[in-house]
Amino acid sequence: MNKKLVFNTLAKMGVIEAALMLLPTVISVYYREYSSMRVFLIVTALMLVLDIPALLFIKPKATNITARDGIAIAALGWIILSVFGALPFFISRQIPDFTDALFESISGFTTTGASILADVEALTKSMMFWRCLTHWIGGMGVIVLTVALLPSDKRSSGLQLMKAECPGPTVEKLVPKGKHSAMLLYIIYAALTFIMIFFLLAGGMPFYDSVCHAMGTAGTGGFNVKNAGLAYYNSAYLEGVVTVFMILFGINFNIYYFLILRKFVGIYKNTELKVYLCTIFSAIAIIIFNTMHYGVYDKFSKALRYASFQVGSIMTSTGYATADFDAWPSLSKTILVLLMFIGACAGSTGGGFKVSRIIILAKTAKRSLRKALHPKSVNIVRSDDKQLDMETVHSVSNYLIIYLAIFFISLILISINNMDFGSSFTSVSACLNNIGPGIGQVGPTCNYGGLNDLSKYVLSFDMLLGRLECLPMLMLFAPSMWFKKLY
Amino acid sequence: MNKKLVFNTLAKMGVIEAALMLLPTVISVYYREYSSMRVFLIVTALMLVLDIPALLFIKPKATNITARDGIAIAALGWIILSVFGALPFFISRQIPDFTDALFESISGFTTTGASILADVEALTKSMMFWRCLTHWIGGMGVIVLTVALLPSDKRSSGLQLMKAECPGPTVEKLVPKGKHSAMLLYIIYAALTFIMIFFLLAGGMPFYDSVCHAMGTAGTGGFNVKNAGLAYYNSAYLEGVVTVFMILFGINFNIYYFLILRKFVGIYKNTELKVYLCTIFSAIAIIIFNTMHYGVYDKFSKALRYASFQVGSIMTSTGYATADFDAWPSLSKTILVLLMFIGACAGSTGGGFKVSRIIILAKTAKRSLRKALHPKSVNIVRSDDKQLDMETVHSVSNYLIIYLAIFFISLILISINNMDFGSSFTSVSACLNNIGPGIGQVGPTCNYGGLNDLSKYVLSFDMLLGRLECLPMLMLFAPSMWFKKLY
Repeated sequence: MNKKLVFNTLAKMGVIEAALMLLPTVISVYYREYSSMRVFLIVTALMLVLDIPALLFIKPKATNITARDGIAIAALGWIILSVFGALPFFISRQIPDFTDALFESISGFTTTGASILADVEALTKSMMFWRCLTHWIGGMGVIVLTVALLPSDKRSSGLQLMKAECPGPTVEKLVPKGKHSAMLLYIIYAALTFIMIFFLLAGGMPFYDSVCHAMGTAGTGGFNVKNAGLAYYNSAYLEGVVTVFMILFGINFNIYYFLILRKFVGIYKNTELKVYLCTIFSAIAIIIFNTMHYGVYDKFSKALRYASFQVGSIMTSTGYATADFDAWPSLSKTILVLLMFIGACAGSTGGGFKVSRIIILAKTAKRSLRKALHPKSVNIVRSDDKQLDMETVHSVSNYLIIYLAIFFISLILISINNMDFGSSFTSVSACLNNIGPGIGQVGPTCNYGGLNDLSKYVLSFDMLLGRLECLPMLMLFAPSMWFKKLY
Repeated sequence: MNKKLVFNTLAKMGVIEAALMLLPTVISVYYREYSSMRVFLIVTALMLVLDIPALLFIKPKATNITARDGIAIAALGWIILSVFGALPFFISRQIPDFTDALFESISGFTTTGASILADVEALTKSMMFWRCLTHWIGGMGVIVLTVALLPSDKRSSGLQLMKAECPGPTVEKLVPKGKHSAMLLYIIYAALTFIMIFFLLAGGMPFYDSVCHAMGTAGTGGFNVKNAGLAYYNSAYLEGVVTVFMILFGINFNIYYFLILRKFVGIYKNTELKVYLCTIFSAIAIIIFNTMHYGVYDKFSKALRYASFQVGSIMTSTGYATADFDAWPSLSKTILVLLMFIGACAGSTGGGFKVSRIIILAKTAKRSLRKALHPKSVNIVRSDDKQLDMETVHSVSNYLIIYLAIFFISLILISINNMDFGSSFTSVSACLNNIGPGIGQVGPTCNYGGLNDLSKYVLSFDMLLGRLECLPMLMLFAPSMWFKKLY
């Protein structure tokens, strides 16, 4: 491993985090929250003191990044980012327990939105802003931001790094140079966020709340600004805006690039987009029917409003809630739990297993069934009219195995908490898929504060595993990651 | 498809079922249950009237069995078997609803042991005997029995058929000729059953009860003979005997063949056996610790007795229960739910995903992690010191995908019943893995009688899917199974 290069890149990420922390500092000055301001300045200074000497004195000789370096930077980078991100909560005593503060910070950066806070309105305005900003930073990825902002010499190095932060089955470069791809992604991301702020303001939401909600939606995060969540505003228009934008941020960003270039064929032929939208519409239809059948909602318009919001929120792994879906009938709840696993599109800010992976799995299954009947047939897995290489097909199967193993090990550890099966099961699936709320004791009207420390660490780790799609975090435990040759 | 051959083999299976139904007929004469006797004779006569003409007049020209023929025989054979098996329950009005009777029959043959009966003691002795006999027939497989009993001309045809009934990743022929392998399997199976009856009698269990319990254990079925289950006898010795034999019947029968041949190296080197036993012991240890910690059991001996019985029962997919594990703390319940999925060894009478498949998945995952760090390394998946071919490795991954798809589709359909998440989830996993009881509303003290008809059919289908390991039942829906060429 090129240790100097890893160190250097981590230091760059630290400087960027320090710079970003100036935003809540400005907010704290505006709202005259001077004690919060002091905390932000202390943490910023701490980061700069640690990072700048590292940047000045540790200079890598070789600058080409191997797969191993990329993995190390992603895994360590996200842990360091989260620890420093937790410090403002902890030092200000607004979240007095460090485990809780770290959980909240990881939940923010990984855009999970699971909270240990029972009363979010007790936070100062600037602290709340930082909490929502972590969603926005984590959504598109802090490494992508680093690649976009800082000068790079090599053509390929940026892309290698971005791959480690968002491996996915279909990471494609938009433009040849990694740096430019990263910039383009952030420009689209910021533009969509601004458009959303505009629509929220138009609905009468206060400016501060609009910015916070837009950042939470853009990153498909889901931290609430009010204890009552979006239900506080009691506005069908605002809920509609958030629903539409949640779904938009769950779409592969390549689609927006195609849209800018007016390459409509690329959009039309995109199987993932079609499956994603069809799944959302079918889920909404079933839940409307099911909840109305059981009399949860008396009017179609009401059922439509709540069903579409909740489906959009869970499918895209955002995690806002305007209805206590834990009180919905079983079928609706099961649909939501399954949507948690499916997740959003690859290349979006959403989490979960990703629609494109599900498509590849479905095609693999179909092919294997055909082969059982006709052993001699030639079978090829196709996607978007392109023949998928077997490497991709197998890597998706392997991802499924690793994902399930992590899921079941986490489930055992969480069960020590002695919650009912539904609560244990969905707390893991909500964190591993970066959703936020589950059902039962971790349902939309509850929080994660009551869990024991072991569970909080397990779920924190699951959130990181989910955001980085398992590999980088697991590699931290592989001896051959750190030592030259062991076997 | 060689339709005449399929018809002919199905007719043979029917004749064997008719012959087996003479056993409960004898019991009905012994216990003077003449109305039950009439029912058994009617059903036997019906089967013979339908099957004997088919055997006499439909003679296949070619006798070699293709993969497609084997799949058709397995799928149709098991459905026909179950329908005729349900007739005695239905015609005698002891289970007045046909859906319920079919559920009970499928549950018997697939060795699931899930029951819709609230009061099993209301059955006549002979009907109860038939119910337990279905476990014994289904355990080793009715096609295996057909191959063992009837003359075959071709060397390979028997094996091809046996493969369709129990595909598994590691079906091996014990001896070159399929017919002799099948006979050997049934001889070992019967011998173990007799030994078990002897041990139960030695513990003071009545003869009739001993035979029924031995058949239920041998097939890893789990139908109770008493409403209170094995707890009725309140004997640690009897529970111990059942525990040991449940675990023995969950072992690959090849091991017993090796034992007879004194090939101890083959046993010692068997990874599946080691993992199977280690999993059982670890699960027992965790559950003892967890239940004692929460004060469910005050003495170690008591915790050991109940933990080992329940673990043995669930892991081997038998499904007897001596404790209401639904009242155990969460960790213990989660361990049991995970054991449901792991299941017994391949080549045993047990169900579930099978230990050997889990081993292959674990090795595949390990290999893929190594490849992520060292892209150029040569990676081979090994099992029992033999290099596994990639065909096997991928077929296990594909099986996982299909298995999960079936699981989640069933879960959605079962949720229409509006049970809590834990009950819905475990009713599917208990049926698909051929266990029997789940947790919550389908827990060990409850039954499946309260579910709606749709759920009963879904779960019945899941039981068949689980017993035949998915492929044959799914193929019934493939157009290319029935028609020559469609695409």
